[in-house]
Amino acid sequence: KQLTIGLIPADGIGREVIPAARQVLEALPSSVLAARLGFVELDAGFEYFQKHGEALPEETLAALRSDCDGALFGAVSSPSHKVAGYSSPIVGLRKKLDLYANVRPVVSGAAATASGARRAIDMLIIRENTECLYVKDEEQHEGPDGRYAVAKRRISERASRRAGEMAFAMALQRDGMRRLVGDADRTWKGRPKVTIVHKSNVLSVTDGLWRETVRGVHASNAAYHAGVDVEEQLVDSMVYRMFREPDAFDVVVAPNMYGDIISDGAAALVGSLGLVPSANVGDNFVVGEPVHGSAPDIAGRNIANPIAAIRSAAMLLERTGHAAAALAIYRAVDCVLAAGNVRTPDLGGSSRTSEVADEVCKHL
Amino acid sequence: KQLTIGLIPADGIGREVIPAARQVLEALPSSVLAARLGFVELDAGFEYFQKHGEALPEETLAALRSDCDGALFGAVSSPSHKVAGYSSPIVGLRKKLDLYANVRPVVSGAAATASGARRAIDMLIIRENTECLYVKDEEQHEGPDGRYAVAKRRISERASRRAGEMAFAMALQRDGMRRLVGDADRTWKGRPKVTIVHKSNVLSVTDGLWRETVRGVHASNAAYHAGVDVEEQLVDSMVYRMFREPDAFDVVVAPNMYGDIISDGAAALVGSLGLVPSANVGDNFVVGEPVHGSAPDIAGRNIANPIAAIRSAAMLLERTGHAAAALAIYRAVDCVLAAGNVRTPDLGGSSRTSEVADEVCKHL
Ligand SMILES: CC(C)[C@H](C(=O)O)[C@@H](O)C(=O)O
Ligand SMILES: CC(C)[C@H](C(=O)O)[C@@H](O)C(=O)O
Repeated sequence: KQLTIGLIPADGIGREVIPAARQVLEALPSSVLAARLGFVELDAGFEYFQKHGEALPEETLAALRSDCDGALFGAVSSPSHKVAGYSSPIVGLRKKLDLYANVRPVVSGAAATASGARRAIDMLIIRENTECLYVKDEEQHEGPDGRYAVAKRRISERASRRAGEMAFAMALQRDGMRRLVGDADRTWKGRPKVTIVHKSNVLSVTDGLWRETVRGVHASNAAYHAGVDVEEQLVDSMVYRMFREPDAFDVVVAPNMYGDIISDGAAALVGSLGLVPSANVGDNFVVGEPVHGSAPDIAGRNIANPIAAIRSAAMLLERTGHAAAALAIYRAVDCVLAAGNVRTPDLGGSSRTSEVADEVCKHL
Repeated sequence: KQLTIGLIPADGIGREVIPAARQVLEALPSSVLAARLGFVELDAGFEYFQKHGEALPEETLAALRSDCDGALFGAVSSPSHKVAGYSSPIVGLRKKLDLYANVRPVVSGAAATASGARRAIDMLIIRENTECLYVKDEEQHEGPDGRYAVAKRRISERASRRAGEMAFAMALQRDGMRRLVGDADRTWKGRPKVTIVHKSNVLSVTDGLWRETVRGVHASNAAYHAGVDVEEQLVDSMVYRMFREPDAFDVVVAPNMYGDIISDGAAALVGSLGLVPSANVGDNFVVGEPVHGSAPDIAGRNIANPIAAIRSAAMLLERTGHAAAALAIYRAVDCVLAAGNVRTPDLGGSSRTSEVADEVCKHL
């Protein structure tokens, strides 16, 4: 069996953490990964745009569609001022490949405790990944009082339903896992729960549709209905509560933009953005992507934390049917974090990106 | 001289904290408040809507406009499902009275330290208060894949400029204050700084206009240009950084929805939402408003923290030209928090709302 992975480092530290993740994938013993690995290096990003006039070349999309079983994306830089014709390649990728849910597990562990976080967190954020303000349907106008601009925020029943289904399914799956490995290992110990984030006190139509649809998923499926609790949280209170009671959440499902903000906030609670992975998931494809950005301030210095990218690679394996290999990576990362002697500067250490990758490989 | 204040308790704990704020205002000795106080009780809120079919009655607006110099607003409850014809009265008030900036000081002190916050914060959030997704221009449609809804997000040059001007002016004013009272008392010790929050890597047109306009305010005014530093922060990183380095911010200026989310997040850093006041500011009117919500779970039990409302009353005084009286309230509150023996449950105490109000009055 063959597993071909597209690698899209894109900008900044993406070019350091994606090779690190590749190194870990290649180090997997054949006893845990029952597939022959292949890699395809692909272009995208702001730097690529500056040279070639496009941020997400058609060839990259074609190669992903025809040659790859999944992909890993690094990070993109944001232009520091408006640039005509530029559009974020990761946002494009999500839409073009219909990767409708962005799955972001935020789990504290040894590293979080070391960096001073007070309460444990074990939360899975499901971020709707194709619409909301990310449809990028914007126009600028000239009015009597000067210029004004309008962006459209789109929320559909279909996208909300798909995100909701993912959330409830994951809540049951996490619960199954807890039963399997035992409660002691997990922070969240209650019944499976899905928290629906919205702001329907202001956006009664769009967020009203979102909330009603996600609730509808719960109500119409007996397994969800009987087995999973559901609660709602306004997005502003969500950010507040997440910091006051990080251990009060299991699965959290949110429209695209709220999900973006919440996941960065949650990352602050586990000690570093450099630890938090994600998977952009569709019915037929998955793109692993660290939650962090391209970090131009530290790019090129071999000090970026590769763990988010390495964990994203594990999520990719998990979603393509290689659960044992995924688990081997998660465990190796946990060992390295628990040992604590090999850490990049964001976690208070002085190790290099490559040293962390080497260390993870040793523990596979 | 007469100072007439409209009181709009609205829903839930609003009905407990607004009377507490009134009590403190009435207890101000005439030596610090050089005006005769008058109060006008006014209706609004979700409960009022349920009885009378409107959430913000025309009489309330008329009374504010003709009889009042400013107002205090409590909090509104959100309907737990979509309710035809209901629209948030506080959002309506901000727009109808053209209260274009929501000023939210978030300052940690004795209470924050007691509740375990790790690093001090002394940040002033200026939230644009009239547009963004709060224009509530939403429609639902029927498509081939089911229903979908679209909300418009409006960003204008005029509103962005007014918010920006407020931010830079406040940065200079805060700097003046620091010089006056001495650095030792203040957490932020650097040069005055304005952080512009946006997400122009996705919303290049709307947030592009916002960012360009606020930057334009800085560039076109020599005092701002020479005296105030300016930086930018994507909204997702803003939430992350705020939690990792809360002391890295002075004045933060944000479009309406981001400002809503960020201020709840910042409140988590000072120990309780029950401490954070705000002022909705226009050129001719000001409405003080605690940042917290109506908290239906604790309403009617005389345990809500009245400090956010009391501080909001002080902000109202400050903005209507009664700085000495405002200062007297701020100081009295700080004394009560520092003493620590009279505290509501959100701060780990067991005092009642009314006891906190009494205690603040004693320290005036
Ligand atoms: C780079 C940016 C467009 C992106 C987003 O907002 O989705 C990033 O913040 C993320 O979370 O993956
Ligand atoms: C009640 C709600 C409409 C309001 C808002 O979103 O502005 C509140 O959260 C606030 O911050 O004042």
